[in-house]
Amino acid sequence: MATTTERESRAEARRRYDAFLAECPSRQLLSRISDKWVALVLAALGGDGPAPGGDCGGEPRPLRYSELARRLSGVSQKMLTQTLRALERDGLVTRTVTPTVPVTVTYELTELGLSLHQLLGQVKAWAEAHMDEVLANRAAYDARAAGGPTS
Amino acid sequence: MATTTERESRAEARRRYDAFLAECPSRQLLSRISDKWVALVLAALGGDGPAPGGDCGGEPRPLRYSELARRLSGVSQKMLTQTLRALERDGLVTRTVTPTVPVTVTYELTELGLSLHQLLGQVKAWAEAHMDEVLANRAAYDARAAGGPTS
Repeated sequence: MATTTERESRAEARRRYDAFLAECPSRQLLSRISDKWVALVLAALGGDGPAPGGDCGGEPRPLRYSELARRLSGVSQKMLTQTLRALERDGLVTRTVTPTVPVTVTYELTELGLSLHQLLGQVKAWAEAHMDEVLANRAAYDARAAGGPTS
Repeated sequence: MATTTERESRAEARRRYDAFLAECPSRQLLSRISDKWVALVLAALGGDGPAPGGDCGGEPRPLRYSELARRLSGVSQKMLTQTLRALERDGLVTRTVTPTVPVTVTYELTELGLSLHQLLGQVKAWAEAHMDEVLANRAAYDARAAGGPTS
């Protein structure tokens, strides 16, 4: 994918940026992309399940605003609009307006968005795959807490 | 790593849980782990840089509360305490109290926490590696927005 030079400049960038530091711009970027709506928008545009056989294995595809709104159940219009605008500004998605009546607005992953999608899709998959284990851990923790220090 | 049976049961879990659905418990878990403080706590316990040569390549290590607080610049005590308690309850970190004077409290990744750390560490590294590209995209977007529709 990346040429040696691109890879070198990314390694160099990682030496200059450090998200552990509050004042580093990468802290703010980490904060932006550590967001469930970002993960879900990228997953939807990246073609993630739960279609039959859908896994992380779907094909990326452009989606209309209304399709995204349906896919991400419970998202408010304000939140979806804000999330999409931030993703567009960061260069992770492109927004295309087609002058139909009414206009059609579609969103699509850029190459940069696709690279982040591949990571965040794994985080979403992790949450789904380890849900039972986490629920069992929570039940055990709560039982210990209720039982006091000796149980 | 995972046996075939474990892998099968995780694949089965991924069929039952779907973070696209607002009412699915995995939506709430995705929301919990999509958090910069979670990413940074796991990165610190996972031994991530920016030590010399530190990349994602560090060794996981237990850290005291005070060490974590120093590592995550800008974190409030309340936020760090809440984050650690949620991670402990979900079974991602263990908390060990040693009866020194004053008591020493250390945190360590569990195996489950380590598996999530490996993913979130890549998200943090992505933010650091693509920072320049994102900053350039933002500048271009803002210039287009300022220039109006014809520019």
